[in-house]
Amino acid sequence: MTDTTPSIERLVLIGIGLIGGSLARALKRMNAVEQVIGVARSRGTGDLALELGVIDRFCMDPGEAVEDASIVVIATPLLTFPVILDAIAKHLPIDAIVTDVGSVKQYVINAVKRHLPEHFERFVPGHPIAGTERSGVHASFAELFERRHVVLTPLPETTDAAVSLISDMWTKTGADVITMDGSYHDQVLAATSHLPHVIAYSLVRCLAEHPERDTLFEFAAGGFYDFTRIASSDPVMWRDICMTNREPILGALREFKSQLNAIIGAVEKEDNELLHQYFAQAKQARDAGLDVKKKNANRG
Amino acid sequence: MTDTTPSIERLVLIGIGLIGGSLARALKRMNAVEQVIGVARSRGTGDLALELGVIDRFCMDPGEAVEDASIVVIATPLLTFPVILDAIAKHLPIDAIVTDVGSVKQYVINAVKRHLPEHFERFVPGHPIAGTERSGVHASFAELFERRHVVLTPLPETTDAAVSLISDMWTKTGADVITMDGSYHDQVLAATSHLPHVIAYSLVRCLAEHPERDTLFEFAAGGFYDFTRIASSDPVMWRDICMTNREPILGALREFKSQLNAIIGAVEKEDNELLHQYFAQAKQARDAGLDVKKKNANRG
Repeated sequence: MTDTTPSIERLVLIGIGLIGGSLARALKRMNAVEQVIGVARSRGTGDLALELGVIDRFCMDPGEAVEDASIVVIATPLLTFPVILDAIAKHLPIDAIVTDVGSVKQYVINAVKRHLPEHFERFVPGHPIAGTERSGVHASFAELFERRHVVLTPLPETTDAAVSLISDMWTKTGADVITMDGSYHDQVLAATSHLPHVIAYSLVRCLAEHPERDTLFEFAAGGFYDFTRIASSDPVMWRDICMTNREPILGALREFKSQLNAIIGAVEKEDNELLHQYFAQAKQARDAGLDVKKKNANRG
Repeated sequence: MTDTTPSIERLVLIGIGLIGGSLARALKRMNAVEQVIGVARSRGTGDLALELGVIDRFCMDPGEAVEDASIVVIATPLLTFPVILDAIAKHLPIDAIVTDVGSVKQYVINAVKRHLPEHFERFVPGHPIAGTERSGVHASFAELFERRHVVLTPLPETTDAAVSLISDMWTKTGADVITMDGSYHDQVLAATSHLPHVIAYSLVRCLAEHPERDTLFEFAAGGFYDFTRIASSDPVMWRDICMTNREPILGALREFKSQLNAIIGAVEKEDNELLHQYFAQAKQARDAGLDVKKKNANRG
C-alpha cells in the first residue's frame, strides 16, 4: 500500500464522530497522514478517540488546534458551523485548506463566505455519501467510504490546488470523488436522503403514539425495522440538516405528499386499475434504479 | 425429524406463489403432507411448481382440485377470493378444512361467510407474517416461516378441531402461531405493514417523476434502497390489500400525515428544539422496539 503522492502533514479534525473518525482511520491505514489532531466538545470523546488510535492528539479549543494545520476537516452538525468558523478564523494558517463533510452544501458555503472570507478560495465543500444509522467515534471504521461517492462542490473562486488536495485525500479512502454544483447537490440529497429520513421519523412517531404501541412494535415485521432503520440516526445531525436545507426539503415533502394523496385518492375512490398502475410503476422504477446501481458497482 | 401427529392427506394449494409455495416446501420437508395439489391460473406456474417439487399434481380448475381435499389453503391475491370461493363451494368435501394466508382478515371472513356459508365453521382465517419483496414460486423456500408469527383469527363459530389442525400445520413450518381478533389484526397490520408499503411506493414515485430522475437514482445511497425495498413487492397483492383493508389503512395514513405535518411545521417555523424533540423521541421509540424484538427472538 505505498503511494507516491505526499502525505498530509497535520490534519485537524473538528468533530470526531462516525464520519470524521472513519476518515482519520482510513487515512492512517494508508499512511496518508502524519498527524491527526482531534477537536471535540467533550474530553470523553477525545480520550476514547486517542485510545482507539483514531487521533494522535486531542484539543478542546478549535482555535488552538488549527494553528499549524495543513488541512482542517469540519465534521460537526451543521448548525455549529458559524461558531466553529469564528473560533478558527484568527488562528488558521493562511495556506491551510479547509473542507467539511456536511450533508448540506449551500448553507456551508454561505457560512464560510461570511465567517471565514479570507479562506474562501481555499475552502472545498465536501460530502461523503456514506454512513450508517450509528453515530460516534466508537462506530467509525476505515472502510466506510470504499466505493462510495464523495461529492465536492467547489466554487469558481476555489483554487485548483485546494480541490486536488481534498480530492486526493478522499480517493485514498477508496471513495469515488465527483464534483457537482452546491445547490444541485442540495436538491438531489433532499429527495434521495433527507426526505426518506423525515418520512422514517414520521412513521416511527406514528406507531409510537398509537394506543396499541406495544403490540405494533411486536408485530412489526423485519421489513418495518429495515424500513425505519434510518430513524435511529443521530437526531441533532438530522435536525441540523432539515434546518439548513429547508427549502429543498420542504419542496421534496410537497412532492411526496402529492404522490401520497394520489394513492389515497385511488384507495378512496376504489379505483383498482389506477392503484395497480401506481404500484406497478413504482416497482418498475425501483427495480430499474437498482439494476443501474448494481451495474455501476460491478464496473467500479 | 419424526413427528407423531398425523400428516395431512391431501393439501390443495390455490395459488402457488411465494407464500403458498414456501408452505408446501416446508410441509414436504417435514413429511407432514402426503400429497400437494396445486391450482394456478397459468400452466407455466403449474409446470414450474411440479419441476421444483413444490407440488405433486397440478390442476387449473379449483372446483375439480378440491374434490378430495383434507385441507384447502387459499394463497391468491385478496380480490380473487369471491370467485375462488364460488368455484369450490359445490365441490368441497363437507369435512374439509379451509384456511387462507391473506394479509387482511375481516374481508376474507366476510367473503367466506357469504360465498362458502356451509363451511364457515371449518374455515380458519390465517396470516403468516413473513415474506420478502420477491414473488412467485421460484422465490419460495422451506425456511420462510421459521421463527415468524402466524396469526390465526378464528371466530366464535370456528370449530376447535379446525383451529388445532391449522395451528399444527403452521407449527410444523417452524412458525410461532398466535390467535387474535380479525379486526384487531387488520388495524395492527395497517399500521405496521400496509402503511409502510404505501409510503414506500409514494416515495419511489416521487423520485421516478422527478425531472432529475436518473441522477436521483444514481445518488440514492444504500439507505434509500433498503428503505424502499418493499416497493418492489407484487403490485397486484398490494393493490388488493389496500382495497380490502381501506378504512384501517386510510386511518393509518391520516395519522401518518399528521405526524409528517407536525415535522413540516417545525421546519417551517424553524423551531429547532421541537424538531430535535420529534427526532429524538422517534429514535428512542424505534431503538426500544428493536430491543424488545431482539429479546423475544433470543427467547424463542
